Amino acid sequence: MWGIIATWRMALDGIEGAAKQLEEGGRADDAVEAAIREVEDFPYFKSVGYGGLPNEQMVVELDAAFMDGNTLSFGAVGALHDFANPVSVARALAADDANNLLVGEGADLFAERAGFERKAMLTDRAKVFYRKRLAEDEKRRQEGAALELGEPEAEQEAARGAGIASAPRGHDTVGAVCLDEQGLMTCATSTSGLFMKRPGRVGDSPIPGAGFYVDSEAGGAASTGLGEDVMKGCLAYEIVRLMGEGLHPQAACEQVVSAFSDKLTRRRGKAGDISFVAMDRAGRWGAASNLEGFSFVVQTQGSEPQVYLAHPQADGSCAHELASQEWQDAYMAARLAPVSE
Amino acid sequence: MWGIIATWRMALDGIEGAAKQLEEGGRADDAVEAAIREVEDFPYFKSVGYGGLPNEQMVVELDAAFMDGNTLSFGAVGALHDFANPVSVARALAADDANNLLVGEGADLFAERAGFERKAMLTDRAKVFYRKRLAEDEKRRQEGAALELGEPEAEQEAARGAGIASAPRGHDTVGAVCLDEQGLMTCATSTSGLFMKRPGRVGDSPIPGAGFYVDSEAGGAASTGLGEDVMKGCLAYEIVRLMGEGLHPQAACEQVVSAFSDKLTRRRGKAGDISFVAMDRAGRWGAASNLEGFSFVVQTQGSEPQVYLAHPQADGSCAHELASQEWQDAYMAARLAPVSE
Repeated sequence: MWGIIATWRMALDGIEGAAKQLEEGGRADDAVEAAIREVEDFPYFKSVGYGGLPNEQMVVELDAAFMDGNTLSFGAVGALHDFANPVSVARALAADDANNLLVGEGADLFAERAGFERKAMLTDRAKVFYRKRLAEDEKRRQEGAALELGEPEAEQEAARGAGIASAPRGHDTVGAVCLDEQGLMTCATSTSGLFMKRPGRVGDSPIPGAGFYVDSEAGGAASTGLGEDVMKGCLAYEIVRLMGEGLHPQAACEQVVSAFSDKLTRRRGKAGDISFVAMDRAGRWGAASNLEGFSFVVQTQGSEPQVYLAHPQADGSCAHELASQEWQDAYMAARLAPVSE
Repeated sequence: MWGIIATWRMALDGIEGAAKQLEEGGRADDAVEAAIREVEDFPYFKSVGYGGLPNEQMVVELDAAFMDGNTLSFGAVGALHDFANPVSVARALAADDANNLLVGEGADLFAERAGFERKAMLTDRAKVFYRKRLAEDEKRRQEGAALELGEPEAEQEAARGAGIASAPRGHDTVGAVCLDEQGLMTCATSTSGLFMKRPGRVGDSPIPGAGFYVDSEAGGAASTGLGEDVMKGCLAYEIVRLMGEGLHPQAACEQVVSAFSDKLTRRRGKAGDISFVAMDRAGRWGAASNLEGFSFVVQTQGSEPQVYLAHPQADGSCAHELASQEWQDAYMAARLAPVSE
């Protein structure tokens, strides 16, 4: 059995490419990296890689990670600047016994010395979003309203386009979990993080156990959402731990997302967006979210790639609905739409 | 009940000060910060704060964290430069709902704007250690020998001084867990990290669930050792989780350190140094290590501060021995000894 699952509709092309590799006997480490690179390279996804939205100083800072579920080796970068494929830098860091998590200018130095492709990651399109956001924030300030964290959920635009009522916020990390026919499991993440974040802010995406975790003897999990809240609960680790105890990935995701959202609400009065995808070593998969309309993509041996929308239920479970063609068209149309100031 | 436990003999003075605050009804957040600051300020501890050993470019880069077990709020800095008290910067970051983990120049910028004390953290003594290490590495290279990770374990010197046979390596993060009479639990960590690390390397100390974790309804844990291996297992989270299920802190520490060391050995052929201290909400405490002679300090309501040495046993348990006055004298003498090139 092979399989791959990833957060958000934006991962679809990457998943399809990875599935082709896996079908031909490719390895889960190569496949998961290829899937994430595809998303990093596409300029119209504004929360990952090239075209990602910048921090408050209009600098794009990128977080990414890679983990091997056989050895538990991981590599990760936080606040990396101007390299085309953060996930590949992260994977290179996983080869060593130490210095696996590098941040900021140190991460840049490593990537440069290792020969990774330099690329100016701030696009003109991202600059327009930045300036529009500055203007909106200024307006809010004048009106005395609180500023919002992060960016208006990208999915929201698609939801509106398709006449769907959901309108939550999100932070749109691409995270994937992969299983190959040899039983190797891997996972990887990549994101430009919270829009308008502070310089040097690192979210959960490069943090083992928070934004990603994989153990080939149990399974893997990857997240998207408010990293600071995901980190409070070590949620990727917890989902993998429960799969290791025999829980189905769907039950593990539902239990962890629902229980921790409740815990945050009890302790803090609120919980940020939390969404997870997971796969176990048998290729069974699951996804859960505290966010209406979270999308994810999955493909396993013998089936076509599919895009689902997650609908959290009052009892803590999470229903999945196949995304309609209309929804998918609206999703891409929203991303490709011209922007103006 | 109140109590505080911390990694390494170096925390003794800090623990005593914190215990005084707790005895007078002080809060666990103030007390744990004060305990860590004391260690950061002492120039002869070469793995924490002022006097800490630099990275391979002879730059001191500091990791620190603070967590509140009531709200699960945390703040953390990675690769911070030239501020006197990284733990205080970390605590300040815990006040926000996002941007809680800042790294590198972004962390510096935050600390500067927030008015924290600038201080050149590289001491002349640390420069001597750096130059000696460069010379040793050069000699090893000429001899064709592998270079060692990190620094020769600081405790090693004390062990030798006291005629104790242990001679392991370590990385000497100070980490503390604290409980106050109101039931608030906190933890905090601070370190200059792996000696000769790569620029931008971040270890487990600022990573929630890896180097530290606390939940006032269960307990808290803090680590020292090879951060890259601690991060592979989310070990602080796992110890706290087990305390939440009712395990005694000693059993939780032993089980996690022993099982994960075995797992790393099985999967990777080796396991780095891993040591933990923990306390639960009743003030019961525990400590375990895969490293012979790991020292820690603890004080709880109604008792004197005590320094222990941990002795891991073949069955996965970990015996504790009160450190003799001779051992303690040798410890401080080793730290205060003149160094020359």
